[in-house]
Amino acid sequence: MPSGPHTPQAIDLLLMGETPRVWSFVVSLFGDLAQGPGESLSGVVLTRLAAGAGVKPEAMRVALHRLKRDGWLVSARAGRLSHYRLSETGRAQSAAATPRIYATEGVPGGLWHVLVAGDAAGAAVLTDLAAEGAYVQAGPMVLAGPGPAPDTGGVLLAVEGQATALPDWLRDLVCPPDLVAACARLTAALTAAEALLPGETGPLDRAILRGLAVHGWRRLLLRTPALPDAAFPDSWQGPAARAALARLLARLPRPDLAEVEAEAQG
Amino acid sequence: MPSGPHTPQAIDLLLMGETPRVWSFVVSLFGDLAQGPGESLSGVVLTRLAAGAGVKPEAMRVALHRLKRDGWLVSARAGRLSHYRLSETGRAQSAAATPRIYATEGVPGGLWHVLVAGDAAGAAVLTDLAAEGAYVQAGPMVLAGPGPAPDTGGVLLAVEGQATALPDWLRDLVCPPDLVAACARLTAALTAAEALLPGETGPLDRAILRGLAVHGWRRLLLRTPALPDAAFPDSWQGPAARAALARLLARLPRPDLAEVEAEAQG
Repeated sequence: MPSGPHTPQAIDLLLMGETPRVWSFVVSLFGDLAQGPGESLSGVVLTRLAAGAGVKPEAMRVALHRLKRDGWLVSARAGRLSHYRLSETGRAQSAAATPRIYATEGVPGGLWHVLVAGDAAGAAVLTDLAAEGAYVQAGPMVLAGPGPAPDTGGVLLAVEGQATALPDWLRDLVCPPDLVAACARLTAALTAAEALLPGETGPLDRAILRGLAVHGWRRLLLRTPALPDAAFPDSWQGPAARAALARLLARLPRPDLAEVEAEAQG
Repeated sequence: MPSGPHTPQAIDLLLMGETPRVWSFVVSLFGDLAQGPGESLSGVVLTRLAAGAGVKPEAMRVALHRLKRDGWLVSARAGRLSHYRLSETGRAQSAAATPRIYATEGVPGGLWHVLVAGDAAGAAVLTDLAAEGAYVQAGPMVLAGPGPAPDTGGVLLAVEGQATALPDWLRDLVCPPDLVAACARLTAALTAAEALLPGETGPLDRAILRGLAVHGWRRLLLRTPALPDAAFPDSWQGPAARAALARLLARLPRPDLAEVEAEAQG
């Protein structure tokens, strides 16, 4: 199926002036196209998708090698083709990130909690909790996050309720100015790309365009904690980016893996 | 009016093995006996009250001098007698501390708030708030206190709600082990003194006994923040001390100033 004449221009917008980090882009592609158990992408498809995003075949081979070595992907040969799929670990991590990446609403606001450590045991608990990505480190021994306070065995001070003040210094910790600016650029790119895509788009191009759009949002989102938009700076365009991504993905239905393989091998 | 035979023993119990710091004891005496505007105590009464607590007349003169110099007391002569009363400042500070000292219940629990500073402006606000004495410093830039969060102009992170965990390290900051032990000793002294006072007690002795009892509780209380008992260590006997003080004071009605003056000058 041929794609509309504006597809290369839309791809160029979504690249936002740089070639994506290949292994991370591949993770985004698998998360979007082949996250289910048993779903795989052939080396031929992956090379075509990468090429569409300006990634050279050699860089793709290196990224696939690294992702296998790090336990994200496993591969199998079928005839002359290599097929790649997410490992159990890779699928679990992809599944864990998916709800947040594809969410059409931000993290619910309202309830907050603050956790304060007062000793080494508490500091260790805070470190583990902070790694889960749903907290802002409000001080050396202080985390603030949404929802009810977890039970931490009484080692931390925990107060749970309304955030009556979320100061600017905290919002800047949640999302520093460079990420606020990146989000504004992404929102503009997603909106402009959507405007360019009135017609039909073929399976491979849909996969590339979806992959780039999801990748742009994913890498931005994963650099910020999973907190309500109200905790972000006033200039944070996260809600607009989320809405623009949803519109773009709705216009570019996820292709069947068989369609993609057929176009790549045809 | 003669006092019961056990009064010296009760005084000895309430002294708890040490002579009170004189200027602080005088503050307790004025707070208990002569806090109202225009109320005064003569030098003769003050010397008798001090002597009853084992304080020498010279030490009392030094203390009165210091309290005048520091603006707590003012004095006036009437004939051959000096009369001392609280200054405006002294009365304001005394009135501010009175509700907590004489409270028969602890600070209400339930609602808490945590305030976190992230910059120098916020740290200055925390310092001012901490000086009000109703917070525990849970970290270098963190206060926790009861009730709703104050409006601090959005310079602090403020979360207000339930304290779902109050760890031991926090309780030890609220009240360190030496004060917990002092509270247990005071509770025992108040209870034992009460048991010794079945009969009539004269105005001066009532004033001394009340003054020592209030002073013992006041100096302990003012070394701890005004937080709910639930935030104190499990071994904190504050509620028992409060109840024992209330029983002792009920048994020793506050004497009229005229009665006290008459007995001292008689």
